[in-house]
Amino acid sequence: MATTIKDIARMCGVGVSTVSRAINGHPDVNPVTREKILKAVEETGFTPNASARSLKQSETNNIAILVKGYANPFFTRMMHRMESSIAHRDCQMILRYVDNNQDEVQQAISLCTERKLKGIIFLGGDFEHDPQELSRLEAPYIFSTTGRDRRSTSQGVDYANVSVDDFEASKMAVNYLIGLGNTRIGIIAEGLNIPSVGKLRFEGYKAALKENGIPFDDSLVFEITEGLDHYTMENGYKAAKTLLRNAPDMTAVFCISDVVAIGACRAIADNGRKIPKDISVLGFDGIDNDMYFIPRLSTVRQPVDQMAQETVSRLFDLIEGKGKPESVLLPAELVVGESTARRSAS
Amino acid sequence: MATTIKDIARMCGVGVSTVSRAINGHPDVNPVTREKILKAVEETGFTPNASARSLKQSETNNIAILVKGYANPFFTRMMHRMESSIAHRDCQMILRYVDNNQDEVQQAISLCTERKLKGIIFLGGDFEHDPQELSRLEAPYIFSTTGRDRRSTSQGVDYANVSVDDFEASKMAVNYLIGLGNTRIGIIAEGLNIPSVGKLRFEGYKAALKENGIPFDDSLVFEITEGLDHYTMENGYKAAKTLLRNAPDMTAVFCISDVVAIGACRAIADNGRKIPKDISVLGFDGIDNDMYFIPRLSTVRQPVDQMAQETVSRLFDLIEGKGKPESVLLPAELVVGESTARRSAS
Repeated sequence: MATTIKDIARMCGVGVSTVSRAINGHPDVNPVTREKILKAVEETGFTPNASARSLKQSETNNIAILVKGYANPFFTRMMHRMESSIAHRDCQMILRYVDNNQDEVQQAISLCTERKLKGIIFLGGDFEHDPQELSRLEAPYIFSTTGRDRRSTSQGVDYANVSVDDFEASKMAVNYLIGLGNTRIGIIAEGLNIPSVGKLRFEGYKAALKENGIPFDDSLVFEITEGLDHYTMENGYKAAKTLLRNAPDMTAVFCISDVVAIGACRAIADNGRKIPKDISVLGFDGIDNDMYFIPRLSTVRQPVDQMAQETVSRLFDLIEGKGKPESVLLPAELVVGESTARRSAS
Repeated sequence: MATTIKDIARMCGVGVSTVSRAINGHPDVNPVTREKILKAVEETGFTPNASARSLKQSETNNIAILVKGYANPFFTRMMHRMESSIAHRDCQMILRYVDNNQDEVQQAISLCTERKLKGIIFLGGDFEHDPQELSRLEAPYIFSTTGRDRRSTSQGVDYANVSVDDFEASKMAVNYLIGLGNTRIGIIAEGLNIPSVGKLRFEGYKAALKENGIPFDDSLVFEITEGLDHYTMENGYKAAKTLLRNAPDMTAVFCISDVVAIGACRAIADNGRKIPKDISVLGFDGIDNDMYFIPRLSTVRQPVDQMAQETVSRLFDLIEGKGKPESVLLPAELVVGESTARRSAS
């Protein structure tokens, strides 16, 4: 009778999953144990039954990731970190991009009917969904980078999510711009009428103005509504052009993401204004490349690696039945580059 | 008792997998057989058990994409276009990132042993591989953006690939820089000792110099070797800093990718030189954002959407047994932004 993986495990005094990891070359196996296992495999002539294994694994090893915002380099890095973390757990990442006009939960439900999933990660998108719809998801799920509105009193469905406190981080950012001497502060916003991080950041902007007795002015607000992905340089460019026309006395602009801020910088330069002398530009995200742009971008940095790790590890806790879905809040920090500066007295 | 897929198979005198393929609309079923099967399904009122179907389908609907170069926004867009094209064909994209020090074919082989794949796309990476290793891939595969060395006389294994002609495109780019009046042209290169697009682009650079009687000078060459991903702004920044030190009379620099070029621009600005007055910078790829950077980046644009489409459609041709693996060459074009200009007489 042919040797099975169980035989190998028994021979080596280890678990089946250790044998599997050793055979598949995963790094998290003790080198001595690995040697022993590979020797046993060789001696017995054991060949893993690929098809049986694939059937077995296909039931349980797919982690779907639904990404809303494909052009955002912040997500690119999140995906890279998540993928390696998922592969480390012997699982595969199924990638599905969700356009801005699509519903990510609907997409996940349709993915669930197509194939069995072990878990689901929502990267980007809304933070509030119909509980009925969420209940149709046939696997544990977690929302990443999409923080809930903690000030809301409505009791929604409990679900897991990992994010920064978008409201507070945004308030801190705008307070910083006010502290630099700005009172005419524009915002390039997004998703104002849906439960999105864009809306939370907008609320943080308004709260900072209010705290400092600065009147809110509609002409300083631009809401991005165009494109399959709202978070793009192109949208930042168009938005800043409009703001410069509508509010020519604007001296600072807060952007809901770094890519939007880069586009805004370009529009301001094309308008003949100097950054930061004439106008300060502040982003949000903290992408790797901020320090290589001209000018180096000031931003609110989210802890991208920690967020990716926390998302995957919380999801696997749920998969393994450990604990309940929770909201995890990670700290954001202000990083000052060259795109913001104190206003000189005029 | 409910009709099972085995009953249908027995009734039609075919195997279970043929029934499954017919139900799932796969093209590789004889039309007469398909008719017979679908008729039997209708007559018996057989409804495929979703979970069984998912098991069965999971064998065949996975397209793996192995991405070498996670930080490259050029690939981000490729992935987005490929994913929608793959989803459109009722398949799922399994994403695996490959670090620069890993072998993408080895990774694909290991993915094949973990699960059954319908097809494999290699995005980035080398264009030459051990035929023995390639033969271990249990699904049709295609290399994307990694063009072969067409000037090589060695007869390698036949495989499908889609790319621009990296050698010719690079020669054209450097000819353009020479035409602007530059003779001291640096190159930020990559992968010079492996069969990579980086090497092809370097050969194109050397050929252009030779054609124009400009001596090749080692001090104008920087080869990126650091990091899990070579194509980053950080590497472009470090490379340009070194070139500025080693060859202070350099008046132009050709970069093997746009992200590398952005980093180089930043290093040149930090060095107190003006772009393009003192130094012209030319990239390669043609990412969406080139026109939003300061300065707008001149580049060699690859037809990203067409490359993505062609890759997926050629892969599905192979999966469906249509045609043989072929090399597809798509045209690259020079796009002049603000980072290159004619040298003023000094």
